[in-house]
Amino acid sequence: MLLRKPALDPQTVPAISRSSYPEPYRARVLPREVRRLGEALGLTRIGVNVATLLPGKESSMRHWHTHEDEFVYVLQGELLLRTNGGEQLLSAGMCAGFVAGTEDGHQFVNRSDRPASYLVIGNRDPQDTAYYADADVDLMWSPPHARGKMTRGDGTPL
Amino acid sequence: MLLRKPALDPQTVPAISRSSYPEPYRARVLPREVRRLGEALGLTRIGVNVATLLPGKESSMRHWHTHEDEFVYVLQGELLLRTNGGEQLLSAGMCAGFVAGTEDGHQFVNRSDRPASYLVIGNRDPQDTAYYADADVDLMWSPPHARGKMTRGDGTPL
Repeated sequence: MLLRKPALDPQTVPAISRSSYPEPYRARVLPREVRRLGEALGLTRIGVNVATLLPGKESSMRHWHTHEDEFVYVLQGELLLRTNGGEQLLSAGMCAGFVAGTEDGHQFVNRSDRPASYLVIGNRDPQDTAYYADADVDLMWSPPHARGKMTRGDGTPL
Repeated sequence: MLLRKPALDPQTVPAISRSSYPEPYRARVLPREVRRLGEALGLTRIGVNVATLLPGKESSMRHWHTHEDEFVYVLQGELLLRTNGGEQLLSAGMCAGFVAGTEDGHQFVNRSDRPASYLVIGNRDPQDTAYYADADVDLMWSPPHARGKMTRGDGTPL
Protein backbone atom coordinates (compact mmCIF):
# COMPACT_ATOMS: atom_id res chain seq x y z
CA MET A 1 0.00 0.00 0.00
CA LEU A 2 1.34 3.40 -0.95
CA LEU A 3 2.21 5.51 2.05
CA ARG A 4 1.18 9.15 2.15
CA LYS A 5 2.77 12.03 4.04
CA PRO A 6 3.76 12.35 6.82
CA ALA A 7 4.80 8.71 6.10
CA LEU A 8 7.11 7.85 3.21
CA ASP A 9 8.57 4.83 1.46
CA PRO A 10 12.19 5.89 0.77
CA GLN A 11 12.20 3.88 -2.47
CA THR A 12 9.57 6.22 -3.94
CA VAL A 13 11.95 9.19 -3.66
CA PRO A 14 14.04 9.75 -6.83
CA ALA A 15 17.70 8.74 -6.49
CA ILE A 16 20.08 11.52 -7.50
CA SER A 17 23.76 11.29 -8.40
CA ARG A 18 25.20 14.78 -8.07
CA SER A 19 28.10 16.43 -6.26
CA SER A 20 29.33 20.00 -5.87
CA TYR A 21 32.91 18.67 -5.82
CA PRO A 22 35.20 19.42 -8.76
CA GLU A 23 37.45 16.70 -10.16
CA PRO A 24 39.42 14.76 -9.02
CA TYR A 25 37.17 14.45 -5.92
CA ARG A 26 33.98 14.13 -7.95
CA ALA A 27 34.98 10.77 -9.40
CA ARG A 28 35.68 9.47 -5.90
CA VAL A 29 32.02 9.96 -4.85
CA LEU A 30 30.05 9.52 -8.11
CA PRO A 31 28.07 7.70 -9.34
CA ARG A 32 25.96 7.27 -6.23
CA GLU A 33 22.34 7.11 -5.15
CA VAL A 34 21.15 9.77 -2.73
CA ARG A 35 17.50 10.10 -1.75
CA ARG A 36 16.56 13.34 -0.01
CA LEU A 37 14.04 12.05 2.48
CA GLY A 38 13.90 15.16 4.64
CA GLU A 39 13.20 17.38 1.66
CA ALA A 40 10.52 14.96 0.41
CA LEU A 41 8.87 15.15 3.83
CA GLY A 42 9.05 18.97 4.00
CA LEU A 43 11.58 19.09 6.84
CA THR A 44 13.75 22.21 6.98
CA ARG A 45 15.37 22.16 10.43
CA ILE A 46 17.08 18.82 9.86
CA GLY A 47 18.49 17.33 6.69
CA VAL A 48 17.84 13.60 6.15
CA ASN A 49 19.33 11.63 3.27
CA VAL A 50 19.64 7.94 2.55
CA ALA A 51 22.63 7.11 0.39
CA THR A 52 23.97 4.01 -1.32
CA LEU A 53 27.69 3.73 -2.07
CA LEU A 54 28.99 1.30 -4.66
CA PRO A 55 32.21 -0.64 -3.99
CA GLY A 56 35.22 1.70 -3.97
CA LYS A 57 33.21 4.90 -3.55
CA GLU A 58 33.62 7.51 -0.78
CA SER A 59 30.75 9.30 1.00
CA SER A 60 32.62 12.62 0.82
CA MET A 61 36.14 13.86 1.32
CA ARG A 62 37.17 13.90 4.99
CA HIS A 63 35.51 16.99 6.53
CA TRP A 64 34.07 18.46 9.71
CA HIS A 65 31.28 20.98 10.29
CA THR A 66 31.46 24.12 12.41
CA HIS A 67 27.73 24.36 13.29
CA GLU A 68 26.07 21.09 12.33
CA ASP A 69 25.93 17.83 14.26
CA GLU A 70 25.91 14.83 11.92
CA PHE A 71 24.56 11.34 12.65
CA VAL A 72 25.07 8.29 10.42
CA TYR A 73 23.32 4.91 10.75
CA VAL A 74 24.42 2.02 8.54
CA LEU A 75 21.41 0.23 7.00
CA GLN A 76 23.05 -2.32 4.72
CA GLY A 77 26.53 -3.58 3.93
CA GLU A 78 29.77 -2.38 5.47
CA LEU A 79 31.45 1.01 5.52
CA LEU A 80 34.90 2.00 6.63
CA LEU A 81 34.93 5.14 8.78
CA ARG A 82 38.10 7.24 8.58
CA THR A 83 38.86 9.84 11.28
CA ASN A 84 41.94 11.10 13.17
CA GLY A 85 41.55 8.06 15.41
CA GLY A 86 42.13 5.70 12.50
CA GLU A 87 39.85 3.36 10.56
CA GLN A 88 36.84 1.44 11.89
CA LEU A 89 34.58 -0.93 10.00
CA LEU A 90 30.86 -0.34 10.58
CA SER A 91 28.35 -3.03 9.64
CA ALA A 92 24.57 -2.71 9.35
CA GLY A 93 23.06 -1.51 12.63
CA MET A 94 26.15 0.45 13.71
CA CYS A 95 26.17 4.24 13.89
CA ALA A 96 28.43 7.26 14.28
CA GLY A 97 28.05 10.86 15.39
CA PHE A 98 30.12 13.91 14.53
CA VAL A 99 29.88 16.83 16.92
CA ALA A 100 29.71 20.33 15.43
CA GLY A 101 32.99 22.19 15.89
CA THR A 102 35.10 19.09 16.60
CA GLU A 103 38.10 19.43 14.29
CA ASP A 104 38.30 15.78 13.24
CA GLY A 105 37.47 15.14 9.60
CA HIS A 106 35.43 12.06 8.73
CA GLN A 107 34.44 10.13 5.66
CA PHE A 108 33.03 6.68 4.86
CA VAL A 109 34.56 4.44 2.22
CA ASN A 110 32.99 1.31 0.78
CA ARG A 111 35.94 -1.08 0.63
CA SER A 112 33.67 -4.12 0.31
CA ASP A 113 32.49 -5.82 -2.87
CA ARG A 114 28.80 -4.93 -2.51
CA PRO A 115 26.70 -1.76 -2.14
CA ALA A 116 26.40 -0.15 1.29
CA SER A 117 23.53 2.09 2.42
CA TYR A 118 23.27 4.55 5.27
CA LEU A 119 21.07 7.26 6.72
CA VAL A 120 22.73 10.62 7.32
CA ILE A 121 21.02 13.29 9.37
CA GLY A 122 22.04 16.69 10.67
CA ASN A 123 20.63 19.94 11.92
CA ARG A 124 20.67 22.77 9.39
CA ASP A 125 22.47 25.95 10.35
CA PRO A 126 23.03 28.86 7.92
CA GLN A 127 26.25 29.67 9.83
CA ASP A 128 27.77 26.31 8.95
CA THR A 129 31.16 25.92 7.25
CA ALA A 130 32.83 22.60 6.43
CA TYR A 131 36.60 22.22 6.49
CA TYR A 132 38.43 19.40 4.74
CA ALA A 133 41.01 17.37 6.60
CA ASP A 134 43.20 15.45 4.16
CA ALA A 135 46.36 17.15 2.88
CA ASP A 136 45.54 16.22 -0.74
CA VAL A 137 42.04 17.75 -0.62
CA ASP A 138 41.97 21.45 -1.50
CA LEU A 139 38.33 22.29 -0.65
CA MET A 140 36.20 24.35 1.72
CA TRP A 141 32.40 24.39 1.88
CA SER A 142 30.30 27.48 2.53
CA PRO A 143 32.93 29.73 4.12
CA PRO A 144 31.56 32.90 5.73
CA HIS A 145 32.47 35.02 2.66
CA ALA A 146 30.88 32.56 0.19
CA ARG A 147 27.84 30.98 1.85
CA GLY A 148 26.55 27.85 0.16
CA LYS A 149 29.53 27.64 -2.22
CA MET A 150 32.41 25.21 -2.56
CA THR A 151 35.79 27.00 -2.70
CA ARG A 152 39.44 26.09 -2.56
CA GLY A 153 40.93 25.58 0.90
CA ASP A 154 42.23 29.16 0.95
CA GLY A 155 38.72 30.46 0.20
CA THR A 156 39.38 31.41 -3.43
CA PRO A 157 36.87 30.37 -6.12
CA LEU A 158 37.27 26.95 -7.71
CA MET B 1 35.49 -5.57 17.53
CA LEU B 2 34.37 -2.86 19.92
CA LEU B 3 33.72 0.44 18.20
CA ARG B 4 35.05 3.65 19.70
CA LYS B 5 33.72 7.18 19.29
CA PRO B 6 32.81 8.77 16.95
CA ALA B 7 31.46 5.29 16.04
CA LEU B 8 29.06 3.43 18.29
CA ASP B 9 27.32 0.07 18.56
CA PRO B 10 23.77 1.00 19.72
CA GLN B 11 23.55 -2.21 21.74
CA THR B 12 26.32 -0.98 24.04
CA VAL B 13 24.20 2.00 25.14
CA PRO B 14 22.11 1.27 28.26
CA ALA B 15 18.38 0.79 27.59
CA ILE B 16 16.21 3.04 29.75
CA SER B 17 12.52 2.73 30.53
CA ARG B 18 11.36 6.12 31.80
CA SER B 19 8.64 8.62 30.95
CA SER B 20 7.72 12.09 32.17
CA TYR B 21 4.04 11.21 31.62
CA PRO B 22 1.74 10.78 34.63
CA GLU B 23 -0.74 7.93 34.72
CA PRO B 24 -2.81 6.84 32.89
CA TYR B 25 -0.56 7.75 29.93
CA ARG B 26 2.54 6.31 31.55
CA ALA B 27 1.25 2.74 31.40
CA ARG B 28 0.52 3.18 27.70
CA VAL B 29 4.23 3.77 26.90
CA LEU B 30 6.11 1.81 29.60
CA PRO B 31 7.91 -0.53 29.89
CA ARG B 32 10.04 0.27 26.87
CA GLU B 33 13.65 0.32 25.76
CA VAL B 34 15.10 3.66 24.74
CA ARG B 35 18.77 4.10 23.95
CA ARG B 36 20.01 7.67 23.77
CA LEU B 37 22.46 7.42 20.93
CA GLY B 38 22.90 11.15 20.34
CA GLU B 39 23.71 11.76 23.97
CA ALA B 40 26.17 8.83 24.00
CA LEU B 41 27.89 10.38 20.97
CA GLY B 42 28.03 13.86 22.50
CA LEU B 43 25.57 15.43 20.04
CA THR B 44 23.66 18.47 21.34
CA ARG B 45 22.11 20.07 18.24
CA ILE B 46 20.13 16.97 17.32
CA GLY B 47 18.53 14.35 19.55
CA VAL B 48 18.88 10.72 18.39
CA ASN B 49 17.19 7.82 20.13
CA VAL B 50 16.56 4.21 19.17
CA ALA B 51 13.47 2.76 20.80
CA THR B 52 11.86 -0.66 21.00
CA LEU B 53 8.10 -0.93 21.61
CA LEU B 54 6.57 -4.14 22.89
CA PRO B 55 3.21 -5.31 21.50
CA GLY B 56 0.40 -2.97 22.58
CA LYS B 57 2.66 -0.08 23.54
CA GLU B 58 2.54 3.49 22.20
CA SER B 59 5.57 5.66 21.33
CA SER B 60 3.95 8.71 22.99
CA MET B 61 0.56 10.30 23.14
CA ARG B 62 -0.39 12.05 19.86
CA HIS B 63 1.53 15.33 19.83
CA TRP B 64 3.15 17.94 17.60
CA HIS B 65 6.13 20.24 18.15
CA THR B 66 6.26 23.98 17.62
CA HIS B 67 10.02 24.29 16.87
CA GLU B 68 11.40 20.81 16.27
CA ASP B 69 11.30 18.72 13.10
CA GLU B 70 11.03 15.01 13.88
CA PHE B 71 12.10 12.09 11.68
CA VAL B 72 11.32 8.42 12.34
CA TYR B 73 12.79 5.39 10.54
CA VAL B 74 11.41 1.92 11.27
CA LEU B 75 14.24 -0.57 11.81
CA GLN B 76 12.39 -3.74 12.77
CA GLY B 77 8.79 -4.93 13.02
CA GLU B 78 5.69 -2.92 12.20
CA LEU B 79 4.29 0.28 13.67
CA LEU B 80 0.94 1.93 13.15
CA LEU B 81 1.21 5.68 12.60
CA ARG B 82 -1.79 7.73 13.76
CA THR B 83 -2.29 11.31 12.49
CA ASN B 84 -5.21 13.50 11.40
CA GLY B 85 -5.03 11.73 8.04
CA GLY B 86 -5.83 8.38 9.63
CA GLU B 87 -3.80 5.26 10.30
CA GLN B 88 -0.94 3.88 8.22
CA LEU B 89 1.11 0.75 8.85
CA LEU B 90 4.87 1.25 8.53
CA SER B 91 7.13 -1.78 8.15
CA ALA B 92 10.92 -1.93 8.46
CA GLY B 93 12.58 0.48 6.03
CA MET B 94 9.68 2.94 5.97
CA CYS B 95 9.95 6.42 7.46
CA ALA B 96 7.96 9.48 8.49
CA GLY B 97 8.65 13.15 9.07
CA PHE B 98 6.82 15.66 11.21
CA VAL B 99 7.33 19.32 10.33
CA ALA B 100 7.76 21.77 13.21
CA GLY B 101 4.67 23.89 13.66
CA THR B 102 2.30 21.62 11.71
CA GLU B 103 -0.69 21.14 13.99
CA ASP B 104 -1.20 17.44 13.33
CA GLY B 105 -0.51 15.18 16.31
CA HIS B 106 1.26 11.88 15.69
CA GLN B 107 2.03 8.73 17.59
CA PHE B 108 3.14 5.20 16.77
CA VAL B 109 1.39 2.14 18.18
CA ASN B 110 2.69 -1.41 18.08
CA ARG B 111 -0.44 -3.39 17.21
CA SER B 112 1.58 -6.43 16.15
CA ASP B 113 2.56 -9.46 18.24
CA ARG B 114 6.32 -8.81 18.24
CA PRO B 115 8.65 -5.96 19.26
CA ALA B 116 9.15 -3.04 16.88
CA SER B 117 12.20 -0.76 16.78
CA TYR B 118 12.71 2.67 15.30
CA LEU B 119 15.14 5.55 15.14
CA VAL B 120 13.77 8.95 16.12
CA ILE B 121 15.74 12.11 15.40
CA GLY B 122 15.02 15.81 15.75
CA ASN B 123 16.71 19.15 16.04
CA ARG B 124 16.85 20.58 19.54
CA ASP B 125 15.33 23.99 20.12
CA PRO B 126 14.97 25.55 23.58
CA GLN B 127 11.86 27.39 22.28
CA ASP B 128 10.05 24.10 21.62
CA THR B 129 6.62 23.29 23.04
CA ALA B 130 4.66 20.09 22.33
CA TYR B 131 0.87 20.09 22.19
CA TYR B 132 -1.21 16.95 22.54
CA ALA B 133 -3.93 16.17 20.03
CA ASP B 134 -6.30 13.56 21.44
CA ALA B 135 -9.33 14.77 23.39
CA ASP B 136 -8.65 12.28 26.20
CA VAL B 137 -5.04 13.41 26.71
CA ASP B 138 -4.67 16.32 29.13
CA LEU B 139 -0.98 17.16 28.67
CA MET B 140 1.34 19.86 27.42
CA TRP B 141 5.13 19.68 27.19
CA SER B 142 7.50 22.56 27.93
CA PRO B 143 5.09 25.48 27.55
CA PRO B 144 6.77 28.91 27.47
CA HIS B 145 6.00 29.53 31.16
CA ALA B 146 7.31 26.13 32.28
CA ARG B 147 10.25 25.18 30.06
CA GLY B 148 11.22 21.52 30.15
CA LYS B 149 8.20 20.55 32.28
CA MET B 150 5.12 18.46 31.57
CA THR B 151 1.90 20.28 32.54
CA ARG B 152 -1.82 19.82 32.07
CA GLY B 153 -3.29 21.00 28.77
CA ASP B 154 -4.26 24.34 30.32
CA GLY B 155 -0.68 24.89 31.51
CA THR B 156 -1.32 24.20 35.20
CA PRO B 157 1.04 21.87 37.10
CA LEU B 158 0.33 18.14 37.04
